[in-house]
Amino acid sequence: MNLFEKHSELISNSVNAIYKRGYYSPYPENPKSYSEELAIKSKGYLASIMNSNYEELSQTKSSTWVGEEVSPYLQTGIGIKYPQSQIEDILLFSGAAMRDWQKVSIEERVALLVECLEQVKLRFFDIAYATMHTTGQPFMMSFQASGPHSNDRALEAAIVGYQELTKYVKETDWIKPMGKFDIKIHKNWKSIPKGIGLAIGCSTFPVWNTVPAIFANLITGNSCIVKPHPKAILPIAIFITEMQKVFVANSIDPNIVYLAVDTIDAPITKLLAEHNDIKLIDYTGSSSFGSYIESLNKTVFTEKAGVNSVIIDSVNDLKSVMQNIAFSVSLYSGQMCTAPQNVFISNSGIGSSDGIISYEDCVAQLCQSIKDLTLNPKSGPSIIGAIQNDLTLKRIKEFESRGMKVLLDSSTILNEEFPDARILTPLVIELDESNYNTYNEEYFGPVLLIIKTKDFSSSLALSKQLAKDKGALTCAGYCIDDERKKLIEEEMNSVCVPVSFNFVGAAFINSHAAFSDLHLTGGNAAGNASLSNSEFLSRRFVWVGNRYC
Amino acid sequence: MNLFEKHSELISNSVNAIYKRGYYSPYPENPKSYSEELAIKSKGYLASIMNSNYEELSQTKSSTWVGEEVSPYLQTGIGIKYPQSQIEDILLFSGAAMRDWQKVSIEERVALLVECLEQVKLRFFDIAYATMHTTGQPFMMSFQASGPHSNDRALEAAIVGYQELTKYVKETDWIKPMGKFDIKIHKNWKSIPKGIGLAIGCSTFPVWNTVPAIFANLITGNSCIVKPHPKAILPIAIFITEMQKVFVANSIDPNIVYLAVDTIDAPITKLLAEHNDIKLIDYTGSSSFGSYIESLNKTVFTEKAGVNSVIIDSVNDLKSVMQNIAFSVSLYSGQMCTAPQNVFISNSGIGSSDGIISYEDCVAQLCQSIKDLTLNPKSGPSIIGAIQNDLTLKRIKEFESRGMKVLLDSSTILNEEFPDARILTPLVIELDESNYNTYNEEYFGPVLLIIKTKDFSSSLALSKQLAKDKGALTCAGYCIDDERKKLIEEEMNSVCVPVSFNFVGAAFINSHAAFSDLHLTGGNAAGNASLSNSEFLSRRFVWVGNRYC
Repeated sequence: MNLFEKHSELISNSVNAIYKRGYYSPYPENPKSYSEELAIKSKGYLASIMNSNYEELSQTKSSTWVGEEVSPYLQTGIGIKYPQSQIEDILLFSGAAMRDWQKVSIEERVALLVECLEQVKLRFFDIAYATMHTTGQPFMMSFQASGPHSNDRALEAAIVGYQELTKYVKETDWIKPMGKFDIKIHKNWKSIPKGIGLAIGCSTFPVWNTVPAIFANLITGNSCIVKPHPKAILPIAIFITEMQKVFVANSIDPNIVYLAVDTIDAPITKLLAEHNDIKLIDYTGSSSFGSYIESLNKTVFTEKAGVNSVIIDSVNDLKSVMQNIAFSVSLYSGQMCTAPQNVFISNSGIGSSDGIISYEDCVAQLCQSIKDLTLNPKSGPSIIGAIQNDLTLKRIKEFESRGMKVLLDSSTILNEEFPDARILTPLVIELDESNYNTYNEEYFGPVLLIIKTKDFSSSLALSKQLAKDKGALTCAGYCIDDERKKLIEEEMNSVCVPVSFNFVGAAFINSHAAFSDLHLTGGNAAGNASLSNSEFLSRRFVWVGNRYC
Repeated sequence: MNLFEKHSELISNSVNAIYKRGYYSPYPENPKSYSEELAIKSKGYLASIMNSNYEELSQTKSSTWVGEEVSPYLQTGIGIKYPQSQIEDILLFSGAAMRDWQKVSIEERVALLVECLEQVKLRFFDIAYATMHTTGQPFMMSFQASGPHSNDRALEAAIVGYQELTKYVKETDWIKPMGKFDIKIHKNWKSIPKGIGLAIGCSTFPVWNTVPAIFANLITGNSCIVKPHPKAILPIAIFITEMQKVFVANSIDPNIVYLAVDTIDAPITKLLAEHNDIKLIDYTGSSSFGSYIESLNKTVFTEKAGVNSVIIDSVNDLKSVMQNIAFSVSLYSGQMCTAPQNVFISNSGIGSSDGIISYEDCVAQLCQSIKDLTLNPKSGPSIIGAIQNDLTLKRIKEFESRGMKVLLDSSTILNEEFPDARILTPLVIELDESNYNTYNEEYFGPVLLIIKTKDFSSSLALSKQLAKDKGALTCAGYCIDDERKKLIEEEMNSVCVPVSFNFVGAAFINSHAAFSDLHLTGGNAAGNASLSNSEFLSRRFVWVGNRYC
C-alpha cells in the first residue's frame, strides 16, 4: 500500500471538512487520547537533552552550534545548542532539495505531509514540554496549541493546497469547431512553485504559527527554511526532526524543510528575508518588523499585532459573562494574539434580563472573576502559565506606574511545581473613552483596559475605529438585543473583524478552530494572511499552461 | 422567472467549463452568428454619433464634456465628448453605489452580470466599429476581441468569482463534543469586499483588457471606476452603457460601474490610483507605469510589457511554420501583448524531416511569408489594421535607422476602404546573439528580430534569460524532437512562461482562449495578474466568520 492509499480516508475527510466548516479535528486535543506510555516517557525528555547539542536533525549540518533558550518556568537557560550553517549554504541546500521536490506528484506530497503529522503525533508530549519551557505556556495549552491544534492547522494548509493544485484537469484536448475543420490543441497545466520560502517564527507560539507556512510551502512544491525565534527553537526543532525522518525514509532530501537558527546578538532574519533567492515569507510577530517584511517586493504572509475589543451591551447572566472574559484575559497571561485587551462598557451600565446593571457592578464582577480564577492556587498557575519575556514584565510594570486608575493590581502567585516561574496576574486599568491615544496601542501581556464610554454607539464606534487604525484579530460582543447584534456584526465586519457573540462556558474567543474558523481575515492592519483561505496557498505557485498543436 | 433562473444553464455550464478547460465559448466569435439586422444598422452607428456628446450613460453626470479620440483609419478626430466629473464626486458616487451593491446576494450579482453580457451582445457590431476607429484594429479582430472574446473573459471572471464566493457553506452549527457536554456555536461566513476598484484601460484593447477587472470587482461586491485611455474610450463606453441600463432596469444604482474619462494633457489616473478610497487597481500598459502601480500599497493586478520569444529548432514543414509566424507577427501590426518579437534560430540551421535547412533559407522563407501576407491587397489590410499611435510609427522608423541589418523593410500599403489609414508592415531585423542589450527590450509594434544563435542550447538559454529579465506572456516552440520539447517546456515554465508548440494553420500563439488558457501567469515581470485564476478574484474580498454562542 502506498502512502496516498494509507492516508486516503483522512485526506478525503479533510477535503470535505474544508467545505462544511463544522467541527473537525483529526488530532484530538485531550492528552488522554494519546498513549500513556508516551506521556510518561516524555516527563524525562527535557532533562535528558538539556545542556547538550541537538543532534536529531537529518538536514545537512555544519559544525557551529548555538542556542540560548531560557525556561520561563525555571528562569535558567536550558542549554540546548542547534547546528548553525552559513546563509549561502542554507540557500544552496534548500534550493537543491526543492528541485527534486517539484518532481514529486501532488498526491505523493500530500501523503508525505500527512505521514509527517502522524509521526509528529508520537512526539506531542515532548513538544508540549519543549513549548512550556521556552514560551511559558501552561502545560495544557502547550500540549494543545503545539500538538493537536498545530497538526490540525498544518493538515488544513496541506489540504487547501491539495484542493488548489487539483482543481483543474491536468491536461485535455481542446477542440474548436471552425465549420469545415476543427482546431485541435493538446493542453497541459502545471503548477510552478515560486521558490524558497522563509517561515519566521515567534517566541510565544513557535509551532502553531509556523507549521501552516511550512505545510503551505511544501504542498505547493516550494522548499521551506524555518527561522525560529532564538528563544523558542526546541518545539519546532522536534517537529522538523520528525518531518525530516519521514523524508529520509522516503528517499527525499530532508533539506526540503531546513531549521536555520540564530541568536539575539547575531540575527539572520533580515539577511535571509532580503536575499534574492527567498521568494516567499511567512511572518508572525511585531507590527513594525511585519511592515518591514511587507515592504519587501516578495510574496509575504504576515500576522502582526492587533488590538482586540470586547463590547458589553447587555447580558443574560453577568457572572458567566465575566468569568468567560476573565478566562480569556488570564489564559497564558494574555500573551495571545487573540486575547482581548479593551473592554468597552457604557457609563450608564448594561442591559440584562433583570434590568440595568451599573457600570460599577460590571467592573467589580469582572475584577472579582479574574481574582477568583488567578488567585485560586488550583486553577491559577495552570491557566496563566509564565511570562515568556522579561521585557513583557517590565512593560506591564511601567504601564502600571503611569498613574492611571488601577482597578486590579497585577501580582505574582506561587506555582508550586515551578517556584522560580516568571509570573504576573492581569493588571486591570480603567480609562475614559477620551483616552484614545492610550488604549489605541497593543500592550502585549496580562493587561486589561476597561474603557468607560458614554453609550453603546460610542463603544461600537471606538472598537471599529481601533480595528481600522491598529487592526484586530477578533472581537467579543455581549448583546441580547437582535438589532444591536446585527449592528455590531455589520460594523466590525466592515473593517474585516469577526465577532464572537455571547461566549460563555467553555467557548473562548481566543481559540480559532482549524477547518472552520479562519485565523485572521487578512483585511486589516493585524496582518495580510488568513489561515488557511485559498489565497494562503494559491499565492505560493503560478499556473502555466502549455499547448501542443 | 427571476434573473438567476433565466441564466442558470449558462452559469452552470460555465462553472463546469472552469474545471474542464476544454473549448467553451458561449459568445461565438463568428459575426455571422449574430443578427444581420444589427450588423447592417451598425454600419451607420459611428457616423451618427461623431462630433457629439455621448449622452447614453446612466451614471450621475456633470456638465463638463471632454474627448480627443482620433481614428487611426481616418486620421481625424472622431469628435465624441464624454461627461467628466470631479474625482471626489466620482468616489462619492461609487462608494454610495457600493454600499447598496454589497447587500445584493451572490446569486443576484452573477445573474445581473450575465444579463449585462446578454445586452452587450446586442451591441457587438457597434463596439467593433468603435474599436476599429480608436485602436486601429482590423474589423474582424475588433469584432472578436472587443465582442465575444471580451464577453467570454468577463463571464469567466464572474464565474470564478461566483465559485470563490460560494465555496464554503454560508452558515453552520459547529458542535464540539467535550465528553459530558457539547460546545455548540452557530457560525456564519461573510465575504467583505475590499472597496472601490479602479480599472485602468489601455489604448489597444480597451474592452478586452478592462472587462475582466470590472466583472471581478462587481461579482465580489466592490464597485468599479473605469478610467480608459483617453484615445480609446468609445468601445468601453458602449459596454458600460449597456451594463448601466441593466442596473437601472433592476433598481440598482448604475454608478456601481462608473466611466471616468480624462485627457492626455490633464490625466487623472495617478490622482485616482493614489486616493485612499481606491483599494483595488487593475492596470494594463507600460512596464514603468505598471511598476509605479505595483509600488502603491494596494491590491493590484497588472499586465505590463513582456518580450515574447520564438525558438525554432526543427520543423515538419518549414513553409507552414513560417506562414504561421508571419501571421502572428503581422496581425494588428504586432500591437498585441502576445505578439512574438524575438525569433531564435541557430546559425547552423534547423532540423526537418527532410534534413537540415540552412539559417539563410529559414530567414528567407519567413520574410517571404510576411511579404505574401501583408503585401497581398486582399489579405494585407484586413490583417495588419492600422497603427494606433503616432509614437509607435516614429519608434519603428527610428529603430530602422539605427544601422542594423535589415532583412525586410517596413513599408506602407493601401487600404482601399480607408486610404488615409496609418499603416506599416513589419520590419525584420537580424541580430547576433551577442546583441543582448538590443533585443532585451520590447519594441511595441510591427518589429521582428531574428536572433542568430550558435546553437539550440543558446537559443533556449537566451529566451529563458529574456523572460527572467523582462517577462514574457508566451513563447512559441518549433521542435519535433521529444527530448528538446521537454527541455523547452521545463526551462520556459521554470520562469513562468507557457509554451505553444508547433502552431501551424489556424492556431496562433497570440490568442488565449477564455475558460481554458490563463492569460499571463502572474509569475514574471510581464505582470502579477493571471486571468482568471482564483486569486484574480479571491484577492478582491476577505472572508469574515462570526460566531454565536
